[in-house]
Amino acid sequence: MSGSVRIVGLGPGAETLVTPEATDALARATDIVGYIPYVARVPDRPGLVKHATDNRVEADRAAHALSMAAEGRHVAVVSSGDPGVFAMAAAVYEALEAGPKEWLTLDIAVLPGITAMLAAAARAGAPLGHDFCAINLSDNLKPWDLIERRLRLAAEADFAMAFYNPRSKSRPEGFARTLEILRDACGDARPVIFARAVSTPDEHILTVPLTLATPEMADMRTVVIVGSSRTRIVERPGLAPIVYTPRSVPA
Amino acid sequence: MSGSVRIVGLGPGAETLVTPEATDALARATDIVGYIPYVARVPDRPGLVKHATDNRVEADRAAHALSMAAEGRHVAVVSSGDPGVFAMAAAVYEALEAGPKEWLTLDIAVLPGITAMLAAAARAGAPLGHDFCAINLSDNLKPWDLIERRLRLAAEADFAMAFYNPRSKSRPEGFARTLEILRDACGDARPVIFARAVSTPDEHILTVPLTLATPEMADMRTVVIVGSSRTRIVERPGLAPIVYTPRSVPA
Repeated sequence: MSGSVRIVGLGPGAETLVTPEATDALARATDIVGYIPYVARVPDRPGLVKHATDNRVEADRAAHALSMAAEGRHVAVVSSGDPGVFAMAAAVYEALEAGPKEWLTLDIAVLPGITAMLAAAARAGAPLGHDFCAINLSDNLKPWDLIERRLRLAAEADFAMAFYNPRSKSRPEGFARTLEILRDACGDARPVIFARAVSTPDEHILTVPLTLATPEMADMRTVVIVGSSRTRIVERPGLAPIVYTPRSVPA
Repeated sequence: MSGSVRIVGLGPGAETLVTPEATDALARATDIVGYIPYVARVPDRPGLVKHATDNRVEADRAAHALSMAAEGRHVAVVSSGDPGVFAMAAAVYEALEAGPKEWLTLDIAVLPGITAMLAAAARAGAPLGHDFCAINLSDNLKPWDLIERRLRLAAEADFAMAFYNPRSKSRPEGFARTLEILRDACGDARPVIFARAVSTPDEHILTVPLTLATPEMADMRTVVIVGSSRTRIVERPGLAPIVYTPRSVPA
């Protein structure tokens, strides 16, 4: 009997944001593989084996999932958000390419999910309604110089920007530096949205001008969105402001 | 009785990719507003009024939705994919900002969906697994020069790129020019994924090197993804290749 791997996006947190396709894949799986809090989101049932691991072991976790599938198991590798955006899909394909040839013909697929920046954008309004970029601010896997270069080029292109993994305890200085670069490169008070734990009970959305943004406003559960030069804030009496980027740029 | 507006993402096409939140909002709506083929995706039921309009009337459609909500209706504005990505959310907020003051306090929210580039990326592998940008190639609403500038800066930043609205009958030359710019700016055979009508019966995924990509490979139902310099193609015997961008960039 041949096994399978489904790399499943669980969305940002709320069960109402999990696609039926993902729910169905979790119901068919024999094994769930992933980071502890994401595996915990899958309901227990008889016969389901959960393999929850800590952060920063993505490569081992991916190889484990592939080897179980090669033995005939039906494995769901779970990611928060969308597995294709700074999550487990690339890790699994890295392991597949590096692994034994027989893994190449495994039944494997990515099931997309609502990624954090789009859930955050929806809550704030439509800040990503025009051209934008997504940058992972963690320098665990790439040199900081490259991040800095991308920030400056993204500002020059006048993209709205979404930042994943803005800040962790082990590298508090990177996000402070990011804000400095943006203030230098953008030179105005464009809106910055700090969206924490969107769609969970801990959800918190804060919008401030770039001039007033501080590193402490972000942690590892926060996605940060910075508007383009065209992004607008609509103040509303008694309600949170709406932040949106118009569709058009005049000639 | 106060009305509401929900700007609802229907995902790329398959019903299994519609979130429960979106399905619930459609079930509660009194009125559905949107582009003809998207409105057609919502099942008819007694009492539900459908307002389907042609393309390129987004501003009128948005104002109509807001005015009906101001009269107490519960309006769902439907978009394909995610409403916040080159879709109806920005159009509705533009109309809200330009409209009467009483619209500011309407009960309004965006319900995110699976956007085309993430559905396409999932099918191809994980081409957006590292930093990337999303550019709308239509020059209906912005000058072509700006598109060209963004393409060159995105190439310089070594982003993977996702292109929405790559090509229409009315402007066939823009995408040809895009491919020329990329060949000039990237100067190598990086993979280009043409993903048409993902998750529908018309789905077609084609991956070619940039050197062999032609304008005719895209139409308005296609999202195009171009890899970064790090993007890899894994050939598989008897199966479509996997295209993915590794998470890491060596120092």
